[in-house]
Amino acid sequence: MKFSCDKNSLLTAVNKVIKGVTPRTTLPILQGILIKAYENNIKMYSTDLEIGIECTLEANIESWGNIVVSAKVFSELIRKFPEDIVYFESDDNNIINIKCGASNFTISGSNSEEFPEITEIIKEKSLVIKANILKDMLRKTSFCTAQEQTRPILTGILFEINKNQINMVALDGYRMALTKYFSEDIVLNNTEKNDFNIVIPGTTVDELTKIIDDDEKYINIFFTNNQVLFEMDNTKLISRLLEGNYMNYNAVLPKDFKTIVKVNKQMLIGGIERASLLASGKNNLIKFTINDNELIISSNSDIGKMFEKLQIELEGMLLEIAFNSRYLLEALKLIDEEEINLCFINNINPMIITPVGNDNYLYMILPVKLNN
Amino acid sequence: MKFSCDKNSLLTAVNKVIKGVTPRTTLPILQGILIKAYENNIKMYSTDLEIGIECTLEANIESWGNIVVSAKVFSELIRKFPEDIVYFESDDNNIINIKCGASNFTISGSNSEEFPEITEIIKEKSLVIKANILKDMLRKTSFCTAQEQTRPILTGILFEINKNQINMVALDGYRMALTKYFSEDIVLNNTEKNDFNIVIPGTTVDELTKIIDDDEKYINIFFTNNQVLFEMDNTKLISRLLEGNYMNYNAVLPKDFKTIVKVNKQMLIGGIERASLLASGKNNLIKFTINDNELIISSNSDIGKMFEKLQIELEGMLLEIAFNSRYLLEALKLIDEEEINLCFINNINPMIITPVGNDNYLYMILPVKLNN
Repeated sequence: MKFSCDKNSLLTAVNKVIKGVTPRTTLPILQGILIKAYENNIKMYSTDLEIGIECTLEANIESWGNIVVSAKVFSELIRKFPEDIVYFESDDNNIINIKCGASNFTISGSNSEEFPEITEIIKEKSLVIKANILKDMLRKTSFCTAQEQTRPILTGILFEINKNQINMVALDGYRMALTKYFSEDIVLNNTEKNDFNIVIPGTTVDELTKIIDDDEKYINIFFTNNQVLFEMDNTKLISRLLEGNYMNYNAVLPKDFKTIVKVNKQMLIGGIERASLLASGKNNLIKFTINDNELIISSNSDIGKMFEKLQIELEGMLLEIAFNSRYLLEALKLIDEEEINLCFINNINPMIITPVGNDNYLYMILPVKLNN
Repeated sequence: MKFSCDKNSLLTAVNKVIKGVTPRTTLPILQGILIKAYENNIKMYSTDLEIGIECTLEANIESWGNIVVSAKVFSELIRKFPEDIVYFESDDNNIINIKCGASNFTISGSNSEEFPEITEIIKEKSLVIKANILKDMLRKTSFCTAQEQTRPILTGILFEINKNQINMVALDGYRMALTKYFSEDIVLNNTEKNDFNIVIPGTTVDELTKIIDDDEKYINIFFTNNQVLFEMDNTKLISRLLEGNYMNYNAVLPKDFKTIVKVNKQMLIGGIERASLLASGKNNLIKFTINDNELIISSNSDIGKMFEKLQIELEGMLLEIAFNSRYLLEALKLIDEEEINLCFINNINPMIITPVGNDNYLYMILPVKLNN
């Protein structure tokens, strides 16, 4: 096997494919990257048996072949190379020689036959979505996935696909994020049904958002009953799906609000950040007191106490309610809009946060019980 | 005590003075900052009993007084405040009220009498030096101070002051850095002697380089037998000196070189970085083979082996010698010049690195014994 290619193209590809390599594995071969050189392409592949990432790049192939190379060594080496052509060659004993500029490296590779077979997904049902939309929706939802394995299905993100609309939902029992997107751009192919629900593992989504390039235009999503494939220009990510039925989240969405507060998002974030300096306990408890024209944020701990008054527009009843400040901040910082609505029923039921003038994003958060 | 001042000026000062606060202390009051409000200034002071930092800033003082406030709480709070005027007030029970924008904080302070007394240094002997020169010299030397306490004097930096010249030296038994500066700008005051040696603790130098602002012009250095004071525009740093005699470093400086290699610094750094990927053992051993017109950098480990050839200008004998790659890189990255000389006697004696055309910086490094 023998090829040469540009250092920077190789580095870009290695940086993506290395995200599929897990440092903790009982199968040492999985700490490697499988490199295949055929025709005029190199394909690089990594997997942790749950997720697989494949990158393709053009190269000058002198002789075809496959080999597995340590992901850590190979990526560090390419990173440190000068900006020049990289010459890669391996012999029958899996000895690899890599040259670039004045550098000459000889390292040992592994036999490609030891590498687990790459499962090809049946390209049946598919969906096309703009890359930047997908990335934004995932970013605004994925932080709400459950971290504990008590209900494994909640460690994933629900993709609710319905003709030209896609909803993404994540919830962990304390909070929920919901993003919606409707567009003629979304096209469902090769399917007689118009709606599908799939649940994608949170870890898959984390890796996916890292490898979607800013210049990526569209992403093809292929799915079967238990697998999903995200296909980009030169990169593919394949993952298992989580099995089981996702919670009926619509049933827990509060309605008939008694208090609606319109407030400037940035001012609210500032106030909560300051209040969280004196937030108490592992709940990071801070309090909202909603008066006629003002929202008073307050907190107190062993260190001291604080309050801060924000101007608001109030519709409905006065209210006193407490929250975990971390949950509030994580959600608010992901909202692009300047103004938001906070919607309450009372101080026991969940609050809903929505950006003013954008119905496509909704954040729900359970209050913390007040001690008094 | 009552004052108000601009948030940003306060933050700048707090960020400096907090560098004198040690999180690990058996004296809880030292986790605080002493704030003094007198006339039209606030002075803030921190100390770990070895180093003291004082910052002065203009403020609108309504009533004079002293108080100690938790450094962690106070700095986080000021950092999170909006860009506005900060109003600070404390009562006789050391209850502090701080307002900024819409925020209102109440925290507990401590009695300033519990804070260790601030030792005033006798402003006797002094030296003036340009701030950017001092910072650069310290940066290029301090990384060579000994980390172990086996010979405490070596954990400091030697300041050799001789009329219009100042030398700084640090060495740890494996390597040494020496920077020199000669200038009419250096002025020794109030002293009949023309030369002084003082040894400043490495930790002091670390803090000092962090608090020297880029717009600082000159620094006054006052020193006695056991203390040193660095006086900047609004900031003072006071520290004890290390006691004892520093090593006679001139005696260990090699002379009469048999091999002198002139090489491009950036190419050498690149080659050593790549070689260090396969450097072996805790010594990070890499090898230099010096031929007629080339320097071959090579290394090998369990993972593989590499070599890289660099063009050089050689004066003198051929040589094979090995080094700890980390020591080489740390020094080379601090050299500003493009070309450097590597000077050798043989493969047992230390090597000298100097920038071509700059006699004011010198780096010495002991070779590692080759196994063959």
